[in-house]
Amino acid sequence: MQDPSDNSEVPGAIEIRRAHERIRGSIRQTPVISEQALDEMLNCRVFFKCEHLQRTGAFKFRGASNAIALLGERNTKGDVATHSSGNHGAALALAASLDGRKAHVVMPENASPIKIEAVRRYGGQIHLCEPTQAAREAGLARLVADGHLAIPPYDHNDIICGQGTAALELFQQQPDLEIVVAPVGGGGLISGTALVASDAGVITMGAEPAGAADTAASLKQGKRVESFQPDTIADGLRALVGVRNFDIIQAHVEQVLTVSEEEIREAMRLFWQTFRMLIEPSSAVTLAAIAQNPDLFAGRKLGVIISGANIDPADWIKLTSEIA
Amino acid sequence: MQDPSDNSEVPGAIEIRRAHERIRGSIRQTPVISEQALDEMLNCRVFFKCEHLQRTGAFKFRGASNAIALLGERNTKGDVATHSSGNHGAALALAASLDGRKAHVVMPENASPIKIEAVRRYGGQIHLCEPTQAAREAGLARLVADGHLAIPPYDHNDIICGQGTAALELFQQQPDLEIVVAPVGGGGLISGTALVASDAGVITMGAEPAGAADTAASLKQGKRVESFQPDTIADGLRALVGVRNFDIIQAHVEQVLTVSEEEIREAMRLFWQTFRMLIEPSSAVTLAAIAQNPDLFAGRKLGVIISGANIDPADWIKLTSEIA
Repeated sequence: MQDPSDNSEVPGAIEIRRAHERIRGSIRQTPVISEQALDEMLNCRVFFKCEHLQRTGAFKFRGASNAIALLGERNTKGDVATHSSGNHGAALALAASLDGRKAHVVMPENASPIKIEAVRRYGGQIHLCEPTQAAREAGLARLVADGHLAIPPYDHNDIICGQGTAALELFQQQPDLEIVVAPVGGGGLISGTALVASDAGVITMGAEPAGAADTAASLKQGKRVESFQPDTIADGLRALVGVRNFDIIQAHVEQVLTVSEEEIREAMRLFWQTFRMLIEPSSAVTLAAIAQNPDLFAGRKLGVIISGANIDPADWIKLTSEIA
Repeated sequence: MQDPSDNSEVPGAIEIRRAHERIRGSIRQTPVISEQALDEMLNCRVFFKCEHLQRTGAFKFRGASNAIALLGERNTKGDVATHSSGNHGAALALAASLDGRKAHVVMPENASPIKIEAVRRYGGQIHLCEPTQAAREAGLARLVADGHLAIPPYDHNDIICGQGTAALELFQQQPDLEIVVAPVGGGGLISGTALVASDAGVITMGAEPAGAADTAASLKQGKRVESFQPDTIADGLRALVGVRNFDIIQAHVEQVLTVSEEEIREAMRLFWQTFRMLIEPSSAVTLAAIAQNPDLFAGRKLGVIISGANIDPADWIKLTSEIA
């Protein structure tokens, strides 16, 4: 049995079940929804796990809650720090605050204003930086040097196990799925999902914007790409896939599909037409990938993790009204 | 035991439980959500029953499904007809279509375009009319004369029993509520809710826009107001309360609170800030009423039925950006 505090070992489904026990009192058990007309249009059955209805508006609250709860279990005191384009930052701010800690969040200057405002609202302290991976990491290094505890956004077992609890719940709520599809950014969600799915005999597929397809490229060349310039409206998926995340993806993810910006916009609109909910672009890559690959999914029973709802309604309108 | 087809008798909780058995295979069991920060702000605990995530984006699908299912049980064949500002029309269109029937929907010309589009998308046939109660009723009378079966939007036991299933589920999902708050328009939702709540020993409170407060006025004068000119952004609450609905409200509803247009706008924004979901103005009157009556609700445990999500995001922005 692995100890989830030992980050040299890949966690398994058992650690994810433990993470779920640990956080279930503070997270929401988000609903799973489907709609027949959409299924008919897509020619498959799709069950959406609504993690955009999670506290702080994104699945990230699961990983942050697990990491914070483990600090308590390990008797580690102190404030926490991270870098984030927004959702992990807000999630960490709330999870820390519920535990009586302060969260320091390094955010790129081009982060969405509503994501910056949310970090602040949940009690986080914001440290703006240039919008590069190097600047984000340097900002975090300074906070760690000041004595804060780093809670990385995805490349960490505690985070991966927390994010995996979304799929764990999904498989309990809808037990007969054949395939689960999740978006790929830093890889926290997809790697946790793949570990649970693998244990449950469910195939995992990823979806990535073509403008931030470092994971698809890494899989193709059999080695993790170490730098790239993301160019996509899906602000939550611009990060480079993490080292340990990529290892898990290589071992457990069947395929990572890529979608165009236009396809993301169309999927955002389709989701609203069907369910009357606004989702952020990062959430829509999965639905876009399903719509664009009918042969791959025809007749199958799919679970899809909708990852976040943190988009300004004005931005949602702007993005979806630009559909060609 | 009452027969729900006998519309001369007021139904009871048992008919609502039967309605739930009848429709549970086609409705969504919508989630109940809460958020600590909002509770702290309101100084009470609020559990939101998310009927805006019901199929067709509103609780109306429950009543329509029950009415259509009962047509089948009673072996009544034929297409159906109704008048609706939108949500009941869309709900009836989908419920009818799932049962192999066509729905004819008389809609006022000033109905929200997305509500008109939704009726069409779910397969309904639209008949536009002038935006008056008389024109709506005349339009429906013509369709009935043509041989269609009228499914009224609220003043009917089958509809009331269907709408009551939302509260039935809410009380199962969150068993220890003291008060349930629902919006009041034609009165279908509040009357079904009050019948279930009364049986469960829970107090029912209503909320109405001050610009369409015919029910509050009717309660005050002890007699149903028979005409009034609604003036509110809450397009789903402009209808005059139904006859049988008013009787049930008089018997089982503790109080109907009224809120201003500004308070509705603020509540729409507050709901989005808290949960990242857009709700239509009609849905926000309950939250507005709670926020405006802190003494009434301090320390209590409330259930609130959020009724619909059918608002164009552009209209949501327009309404909420006009907050003074």
